[in-house]
Amino acid sequence: MLETNSINGKISSVMTKDNFSFELLATDGKARAGIFHTPHGPIPTPIFAPVGTQATVKAVTPEQLEALDASLVLSNTYHLYLRPGADLVAELGGLHQFMAWPKPILTDSGGFQVFSLTGLRKIDDDGVTFKSYLDGSIHRFSPEISIAVQEKLGADIIMAFDECSNPNDYAYNIKSMERTHRWLERCIAAKKRNDQALFGIVQGGIFEDLRKASAEFVSSFDLPGFAIGGLSVGESKAEMNAILDIVPAMLPNNKPRYLMGVGSPEDLINGILRGIDIFDCVLPTRLARHGAAMTFLGRLNMNNAIFAHDSRPITEECDCYACRNFSRAYIRHLILSKEMLAATLLSIHNIATLEKLVKQSRQAIFDGTYTQYAENFLKNYKTVS
Amino acid sequence: MLETNSINGKISSVMTKDNFSFELLATDGKARAGIFHTPHGPIPTPIFAPVGTQATVKAVTPEQLEALDASLVLSNTYHLYLRPGADLVAELGGLHQFMAWPKPILTDSGGFQVFSLTGLRKIDDDGVTFKSYLDGSIHRFSPEISIAVQEKLGADIIMAFDECSNPNDYAYNIKSMERTHRWLERCIAAKKRNDQALFGIVQGGIFEDLRKASAEFVSSFDLPGFAIGGLSVGESKAEMNAILDIVPAMLPNNKPRYLMGVGSPEDLINGILRGIDIFDCVLPTRLARHGAAMTFLGRLNMNNAIFAHDSRPITEECDCYACRNFSRAYIRHLILSKEMLAATLLSIHNIATLEKLVKQSRQAIFDGTYTQYAENFLKNYKTVS
Repeated sequence: MLETNSINGKISSVMTKDNFSFELLATDGKARAGIFHTPHGPIPTPIFAPVGTQATVKAVTPEQLEALDASLVLSNTYHLYLRPGADLVAELGGLHQFMAWPKPILTDSGGFQVFSLTGLRKIDDDGVTFKSYLDGSIHRFSPEISIAVQEKLGADIIMAFDECSNPNDYAYNIKSMERTHRWLERCIAAKKRNDQALFGIVQGGIFEDLRKASAEFVSSFDLPGFAIGGLSVGESKAEMNAILDIVPAMLPNNKPRYLMGVGSPEDLINGILRGIDIFDCVLPTRLARHGAAMTFLGRLNMNNAIFAHDSRPITEECDCYACRNFSRAYIRHLILSKEMLAATLLSIHNIATLEKLVKQSRQAIFDGTYTQYAENFLKNYKTVS
Repeated sequence: MLETNSINGKISSVMTKDNFSFELLATDGKARAGIFHTPHGPIPTPIFAPVGTQATVKAVTPEQLEALDASLVLSNTYHLYLRPGADLVAELGGLHQFMAWPKPILTDSGGFQVFSLTGLRKIDDDGVTFKSYLDGSIHRFSPEISIAVQEKLGADIIMAFDECSNPNDYAYNIKSMERTHRWLERCIAAKKRNDQALFGIVQGGIFEDLRKASAEFVSSFDLPGFAIGGLSVGESKAEMNAILDIVPAMLPNNKPRYLMGVGSPEDLINGILRGIDIFDCVLPTRLARHGAAMTFLGRLNMNNAIFAHDSRPITEECDCYACRNFSRAYIRHLILSKEMLAATLLSIHNIATLEKLVKQSRQAIFDGTYTQYAENFLKNYKTVS
């Protein structure tokens, strides 16, 4: 907290987008290692951000997250806008203070969640009207509203309001991409706070020509960072990797690149190989609540009877709190007994696994051995139960 | 862990019931302050033991419990016998290792839970036959089986198998008290491990003559500690206090006295005033899961709308992790959002509140000001929302 506060204090008077400078420290092929500086501290990249949808990473405390060396947490504008409301979060000192997370936070624009509300939303060129999932009340998001809400929430990184459409519909992707581009211009114009970094988002579905056009357009703005949206939403791994083969190289070298909503260990490896710096996903905490442990070899379903008498930790080589203290048999017992501690221990372990993956990747990039590290990882990675 | 291990190592070769010596350090009226020594470390008394029914104190990690200065945790023999089974716990190194709790543990006998299974159990003088709440399978507990199961679990303090009956039925209480006495003799005869302290239990419902007879009988055995069972099970506070006015004084002065299944802040104060040393209850963690915070002034229902904008901690004077970091408004948001962190933070706070209560009580006993402390506490204690 002290370090964060002093960083905050030191630069608050000269808060410009330069305060979000990205230091590119090493490259290895397309893979990159760097540091993205924010008002709430540095984010070493590549980095995985756990998701705290409702201003809490489910089943873990901020203290436990800090012990895992997590440096960036994502929170969802759509959910927080509906409950408890952005005004309340602002009144209580902003998202960092509200959720007691002193390190960097990223909020999405709310777009992805709103557009996922099939049948409950109506899109036009100005924005989108949608029904609350909580009480059916009618709300409207536009680029200006999304930015205003994100400014009230107060994250370090905020996202442009974009439309994430069906990745396979070419005609619609043209339309939604162009809409996303107009909305980016409006987001940039609407933005007032200078202590937040606005990232633009490249869309275009699975279509290389649209992705190129979008990357060209979005990177024409002098933004502190860039994101790739609309992937890991139903397309194949090959389709995702094909887009990642072309888009990152079109984005500015001196700015961080964020692959939104991704995720699995193999996707992280494939993304880093292709020049991605930032990832986020609900996967580690969601799998945890379903009793699954992530490992470098694949997933373990911890309620499997083969673990009933297993005195080993989830993985021998993991040094997270769960693995240092508890057996597979105990964790299985917690799952069968429907004890909350199961979700807590598995969330800790799964986040630790992804943080370890990005940390090892970062080191391998410094060492110039990332291609080998990635190949080795992907060769060993499979579902083992 | 190191300290516990070294204590363990030092005394393992001379493990007798003397290793469970009780040092009575100070008295103030009937109130007592002491230390009960166990193979897993000292228990400063008076003490409150959080309950970890299924080998986990719900919603908190052992690490969080240790940060709260909890020194004794209770676990339930009935639940662990059915799942995961005492053999499995023994195979995995015993309950301390299984649940990663290096400090003292107490297991109940399973009696209370079995006798609560109205319609699912059949009592005879030898023991009780009952149906599993998990799968309807038929099981039998007897004094010998209860001790054998508790020896497999491996807690520091184990309890005699007793019958806890309706506290208002005089005729039945005679019968169940006498059965409890015979069963105590059988528990003592059955006990094999010498690194566990067996506590005898005084029964007798709300009837002073029966309680006196039971206290006299039970305390005639040279046991390392004594418990009062069958209270806080439906009788009035006045009836409970009336029993507590007579029973503790009949128990040996140089042994700890444990009031089973109690409880609330006012019950702790009333118990300590009457010479009780050890308490346990699910209340702090159960209330937490229902969104209620315990304070020295009474309970707060944290989902109350009056807390929607409240930036204060649950209580200003509490130094628990929840109060150091989070606002009432945030905790209310977590409850409304059905986030697990609500139960975690409130469990931490509620356990902290009871640990603080017993710690302050202990100090007041040393200071000779306990009557005043207790009067002051009870005067201020009420429901404030």
